[in-house]
Amino acid sequence: MEIRRLDSRAEDFAQAMQDLLAQSSVSQDEVSTRVADIIGDIRARGDAALLHYAAVLDATEVDDVRQLRLSAETLRAAWEGLDAPTQKALQTAHDNVAEYGERQKLQDWSYTRSDGSILAQQVRPLDSVGIYVPGGKAAYPSSVIMNAVPAKVAGVARIVMVVPTPGGVANPLVLASAYLCGVDEVWTIGGAHAVAALAYGTQSLAAVDKITGPGNRYVAEAKRQVFGQVGIDMIAGPSEVVIIADDTAQADWIAADLFAQAEHDEMAQSILLTPSAQLAEHVQKSIAKLLPQQARAAIIERSLAERGALIVCEDIAECIALSNHIAPEHLELMFEQAADYVPHIRHAGAIFVGEHSNEVFGDYCAGTNHVLPTSRSARFASALGVYDFQKRSSVLQLSRAAAGQLSPIAEHLAKGEGLFAHALSAQLRGGDA
Amino acid sequence: MEIRRLDSRAEDFAQAMQDLLAQSSVSQDEVSTRVADIIGDIRARGDAALLHYAAVLDATEVDDVRQLRLSAETLRAAWEGLDAPTQKALQTAHDNVAEYGERQKLQDWSYTRSDGSILAQQVRPLDSVGIYVPGGKAAYPSSVIMNAVPAKVAGVARIVMVVPTPGGVANPLVLASAYLCGVDEVWTIGGAHAVAALAYGTQSLAAVDKITGPGNRYVAEAKRQVFGQVGIDMIAGPSEVVIIADDTAQADWIAADLFAQAEHDEMAQSILLTPSAQLAEHVQKSIAKLLPQQARAAIIERSLAERGALIVCEDIAECIALSNHIAPEHLELMFEQAADYVPHIRHAGAIFVGEHSNEVFGDYCAGTNHVLPTSRSARFASALGVYDFQKRSSVLQLSRAAAGQLSPIAEHLAKGEGLFAHALSAQLRGGDA
Repeated sequence: MEIRRLDSRAEDFAQAMQDLLAQSSVSQDEVSTRVADIIGDIRARGDAALLHYAAVLDATEVDDVRQLRLSAETLRAAWEGLDAPTQKALQTAHDNVAEYGERQKLQDWSYTRSDGSILAQQVRPLDSVGIYVPGGKAAYPSSVIMNAVPAKVAGVARIVMVVPTPGGVANPLVLASAYLCGVDEVWTIGGAHAVAALAYGTQSLAAVDKITGPGNRYVAEAKRQVFGQVGIDMIAGPSEVVIIADDTAQADWIAADLFAQAEHDEMAQSILLTPSAQLAEHVQKSIAKLLPQQARAAIIERSLAERGALIVCEDIAECIALSNHIAPEHLELMFEQAADYVPHIRHAGAIFVGEHSNEVFGDYCAGTNHVLPTSRSARFASALGVYDFQKRSSVLQLSRAAAGQLSPIAEHLAKGEGLFAHALSAQLRGGDA
Repeated sequence: MEIRRLDSRAEDFAQAMQDLLAQSSVSQDEVSTRVADIIGDIRARGDAALLHYAAVLDATEVDDVRQLRLSAETLRAAWEGLDAPTQKALQTAHDNVAEYGERQKLQDWSYTRSDGSILAQQVRPLDSVGIYVPGGKAAYPSSVIMNAVPAKVAGVARIVMVVPTPGGVANPLVLASAYLCGVDEVWTIGGAHAVAALAYGTQSLAAVDKITGPGNRYVAEAKRQVFGQVGIDMIAGPSEVVIIADDTAQADWIAADLFAQAEHDEMAQSILLTPSAQLAEHVQKSIAKLLPQQARAAIIERSLAERGALIVCEDIAECIALSNHIAPEHLELMFEQAADYVPHIRHAGAIFVGEHSNEVFGDYCAGTNHVLPTSRSARFASALGVYDFQKRSSVLQLSRAAAGQLSPIAEHLAKGEGLFAHALSAQLRGGDA
């Protein structure tokens, strides 16, 4: 199979990198209009519209919207139906993600100025959140854990999960994970109508305050359109990994990690950056050797051919610089003294240090979250975390003395902006200082 | 003048509250299409399109896009041209906002598991941000301070400000504030084309990683559309204040604070919640008395008439409960022992405790940020802060022992999801444990 080979010393390297990172920007117009129609319909007709779309788009026909909600008993039965190794695996993943999440919890703080004024920041959990879990081929129990556990650790009182179950076929691992994580409501709906129902509510499904979780382009567009009415985590794009490795790394392991990324879908991106032309050669051979054994070989091959690359650089420093430009969702460092280089990583969703810290452990069970900023958005965004389910109120408690001092300043600035009622409000507080 | 009076014991109170909080949802279709066209044009034609829209929409005709950028000398001259009291007022505001911001800075952390694994979170500033500062009637120097200072405290290397200056008329206070805050580039453009240029870049204006700051509905829609390509802070709506007060509060002060909110624009919302019918009566009289003296009386009157309310409740507890339902951008507490009630506030952008802590001090100079979640979005969003200009990478450094333990778990879960390359990647790490 063909995987792109690039050399950073080549003349056309800059252009080649640009082509490699370019996303096909399919016209969004049709998706956008369709989604807007669905959202409008859910807002206008509520339950009736939800029933309609569940039948047409989720292949789930029922008479009453309440039948789209799974009972607590169903969730518990799914958990109890699992064998012990599976229960233990899910439990370990849950516990490690919760442990890491506890560290992320934002805390209240306050400080007192010498004039007696108290300034503070008060943190509270969101009241309710909606978790979108894709159905069909990508119905992953790990998605439930990665979204629900941080919300639970934050203290969210009502966690609502939506997951389409076409033809009534539900993934028992997904339902069991919902039970394990203490999800409060599970609805068997998906798509833009599920996002709309979570954002605006219907007669039977109460609206939530924020929606997180990945989905297809209709779900992503629906999240964009309801943003403001509710919070959202991010607009997810295709997943990607960058691996920086030198001659000390094992080529087979690198090939397996590139495959793990590539098997998600054809648009996933897997890139190796290495100062060693020899390693690139070995990885190419490992790919050729291991690919035929892969269950999802066709997807992997297409993904690697279209969006993969093995890139030979001058040295590790250049690899890091290139990685910072790419701002990858996942970054694996497999070279001597890798930990020393972590502080130089400016943009990456998650960093995996050393050959025993592969992305897959982060995907499932090590503790870090697998919902990460994709498509270069690690330049400005972070992993999903407990902080995404908390918010901050600033608190200002000025002393009389402080008000006396700030009064003329605020009055002056307010007049400079032509806001004279602001000036009056400030001036009144200065009178009795 | 008429301001709505409501009583929480009235039979139709729930409906009256719903009407009060309802936003006119004007059709967005036209705005949305127009904005999409402008963004597409900037992406396609870059500088040429920017020149076109600057001339047509910003009333700023130049031959070369570089003429749209103000020189460092222009900014410094604006600062040096200010009188001493104005310089001191801006400097005090700057220093207090920076002091509060220092407390918000996220820090790296890590912990080590008993198996020797290290889990960490690494925090880095964004490389570059764009600050949108509205021009015309709402060109506020305080907007510059509230957006630029947190970015500077976070350590953002490149801060780019856009502010329209129709006909070449710039507000010297705005330019001076940019100088004071160390803004790196100032461009005299506004509207959707400024947002598009910041998000995608042109030949002359390099793209940024995140865009913050308020604007009109075209700006808000443009931010929504470029979200994902860059980060954005929020979609700003009309501003609002809720004041909870009892008989110990001064009616004139409350009236002034309601005015200060209402003078922003007709859609601003000012609400008093009080257990005292007598206070409501007094505030009504203060409004009647003080309104005629207000420079912006017409706007205040229209805002109070259309969106204002004085609401009499059972007691302070009911006031707090109603406020939590409203989730106001600004919340003033003017009653005995107000500080004791702060922990019960679940949703508010900023909380002002006691009669000497009015919103106006927060708007300008006390230290807390005035960019706050509007239109009930305090249910899920927070004040703009230093944390908005930082992002987190999770870091996973597993020991060989930990990899050995997690290997079968990750392998089991991967197989459960049908991802066999994931399983292989996990399995390889277990071999030599």
